[in-house]
Amino acid sequence: MRYIEPAPLSRVAEIAARVKPVEDVLTMPTWDALGYVAARDIGVPHDYPPRPRAAYDGYAVDSSLTPGRFKVAGSILVGQYRDVKAGPGESFYVTVGAFLPDGTDAVVPEEAVEKEGEYIVVRQKYNRYDNVDPPGAYAPKGAVLLKKGYVISIFDIVGLLDVGVTKVKVFRKLRAALISTGDELIKPPIDPDEAAELVLRGKVIESTGSLVEWYIKSFMPYVELAHREVMGDDTEELKRVIEAHLPNVDMVIVTGGAGPSEIDHFYKLGLPGLRGFRMKPGRPTSVAVVEGKPIFGLSGYPISALHGVIRIVEPVARRMANVAAGSPSAWTYAVLTADVRSDMAQFLRAKLEYKDGELLATPLKTKHHSFTDPEASGIVLIPPGGAKKGDVVIALMYRDLRDLIQP
Amino acid sequence: MRYIEPAPLSRVAEIAARVKPVEDVLTMPTWDALGYVAARDIGVPHDYPPRPRAAYDGYAVDSSLTPGRFKVAGSILVGQYRDVKAGPGESFYVTVGAFLPDGTDAVVPEEAVEKEGEYIVVRQKYNRYDNVDPPGAYAPKGAVLLKKGYVISIFDIVGLLDVGVTKVKVFRKLRAALISTGDELIKPPIDPDEAAELVLRGKVIESTGSLVEWYIKSFMPYVELAHREVMGDDTEELKRVIEAHLPNVDMVIVTGGAGPSEIDHFYKLGLPGLRGFRMKPGRPTSVAVVEGKPIFGLSGYPISALHGVIRIVEPVARRMANVAAGSPSAWTYAVLTADVRSDMAQFLRAKLEYKDGELLATPLKTKHHSFTDPEASGIVLIPPGGAKKGDVVIALMYRDLRDLIQP
Repeated sequence: MRYIEPAPLSRVAEIAARVKPVEDVLTMPTWDALGYVAARDIGVPHDYPPRPRAAYDGYAVDSSLTPGRFKVAGSILVGQYRDVKAGPGESFYVTVGAFLPDGTDAVVPEEAVEKEGEYIVVRQKYNRYDNVDPPGAYAPKGAVLLKKGYVISIFDIVGLLDVGVTKVKVFRKLRAALISTGDELIKPPIDPDEAAELVLRGKVIESTGSLVEWYIKSFMPYVELAHREVMGDDTEELKRVIEAHLPNVDMVIVTGGAGPSEIDHFYKLGLPGLRGFRMKPGRPTSVAVVEGKPIFGLSGYPISALHGVIRIVEPVARRMANVAAGSPSAWTYAVLTADVRSDMAQFLRAKLEYKDGELLATPLKTKHHSFTDPEASGIVLIPPGGAKKGDVVIALMYRDLRDLIQP
Repeated sequence: MRYIEPAPLSRVAEIAARVKPVEDVLTMPTWDALGYVAARDIGVPHDYPPRPRAAYDGYAVDSSLTPGRFKVAGSILVGQYRDVKAGPGESFYVTVGAFLPDGTDAVVPEEAVEKEGEYIVVRQKYNRYDNVDPPGAYAPKGAVLLKKGYVISIFDIVGLLDVGVTKVKVFRKLRAALISTGDELIKPPIDPDEAAELVLRGKVIESTGSLVEWYIKSFMPYVELAHREVMGDDTEELKRVIEAHLPNVDMVIVTGGAGPSEIDHFYKLGLPGLRGFRMKPGRPTSVAVVEGKPIFGLSGYPISALHGVIRIVEPVARRMANVAAGSPSAWTYAVLTADVRSDMAQFLRAKLEYKDGELLATPLKTKHHSFTDPEASGIVLIPPGGAKKGDVVIALMYRDLRDLIQP
């Protein structure tokens, strides 16, 4: 099995070298940052949890007094913060996730105590941090959760919020104008029966632009479609539309009219750039660069235009948006690098990486019911009964597979 | 290499058997049908193309008169429909995609003719349908393009519109209410600095519901979130909210309070159903079914809730929405089953299927610059220089990988 890289087209590098990457950095609430590109490494500002935290429902006690008898002085539920201190011989009922009160350092599980009125009896010896997550257990201060250039995914957001990173610095999104051209195009909405009739007469219902828009929304969330238009094959009008929008966007994508024939118009715009790429379909794709802004001339055929987007527009846009690792979360399959013993169906974070023709999934030790591990790039589904090293399992990726592959 | 199926949890089948699938069928314009489930097999109502169509820019001629000299009587561009007939010895200039006029049956490429004023000279013999797509070449009348139960993807829409299928019958979407519960929850928007401070005091910024919402939007487009709410841990209030929304939705998803402890509330609702699944994390997940509508009680922890959605909510929702094949388009990799010779970078439709532990990609003969082949389930990227049988290539799937795997 030989792995074939989707080798970048050599002329794409020429374009990428001539475009102007985005420099504007915004600070925004983490919960609004989906699809933005991190402009800095994002680290944890403090140990998390900041204080010892219950890892089990039960009674918080001073472990040095176990075994022993404790008075139940109150309770602290998850999300409650009570500035209380347990006196000698006092305990507090705590639930998973609650911070322990000062004066306690271990949790005795609810089912392991004997209740005697207002008192509990602990028969065993407990040690410091038994059933407790110590400070920094999930993320020590300074740990990098997300690197500069990473497209922020929902998993990143969940992880960052969990440890209290509520603001992030991101690059502003690229702004793009998408212009579909073609005298033959019918633009929905239109009466469906009328549209069907027109197709039989040689008209084409505009869908190439919709496909490009879908790809951008699905896989290039760092691009914002600032303008969308459907127009006829009119070189002068196209020129006017491009000139009108270029000052407000970072790139223009034109579909249709990319070819070399008399009825094509992109080349008639007379813009400086490249014409023709060694790719099929989509060979007549053209790219111009005006003051650091690319203007892409894609085929009017859906699959050819999509090929142009994937081979040419996306790599250039990634360069402009400062993307180091994308985030199209998706299902794939992967080969386990270690046994996972389990009676139950499991869901495990994993590091996914491509090696010798295989996507490998290395299960990560679960420290936490979240996604804060910066090594994690996916979650694997383990069936009841467990799985063995070398088994193929289904994984939900939260990094772009293509980034896991590139050397 | 042993392939491990993400075996369905046995108790999920019990729930699936008790829910009521959607029966309402809507007719809608194809361009609005993204994410809906096809309610019928969708076939082509007529041969497509309906008439012989130029596959090359050039001159439409009567092949029986080649080699020969033709008068250029006019031109027909793609999207133009001209009810004209070529007289004996007449030709029309046509562009790719244009319907041929009556009286012609072949296209002589532009670069293969000699021009003599109003005439062209064709030196070679041409045969019927040379450089022409005959009627029905892309899709013969009656060909099934999409099967009942398939979630409609952008690729399906492009293909259906291309052949003039402008209306489709679909099942209405499922309606769901999503309720996040927890006294510890902070609900954005809120001042980020204040939120960070509250996290240090044990509060939790609501993100479990956002993660569930993201998964539904990304992978379950046939579900519409009709209601979203964040509330405290209050059994009576939760009961009121569920009762208020249940008549208007097909399912309710509650996050938080799913456990068995004193502070949990889902079990206190007293609804008939199942409690506890053999899965980790997410073991305390509960499901009740009321009049054919499931009410899911998921963990409040993001990863546990997501596990519950994937193992329990999604299979039940698929059953209710009549889904036979999902559509989360995504990048994966696949093993080629045949050589692809190519100097150029290529983009080929492929049939993807899972066999003996490998995802196999069988390149399909490209008949058309579109996606109309019902066998196609993805597009593979072939690098310049081509690829060989057994090579691993990158593929953009447009069917859910998990559907390709199931036996």
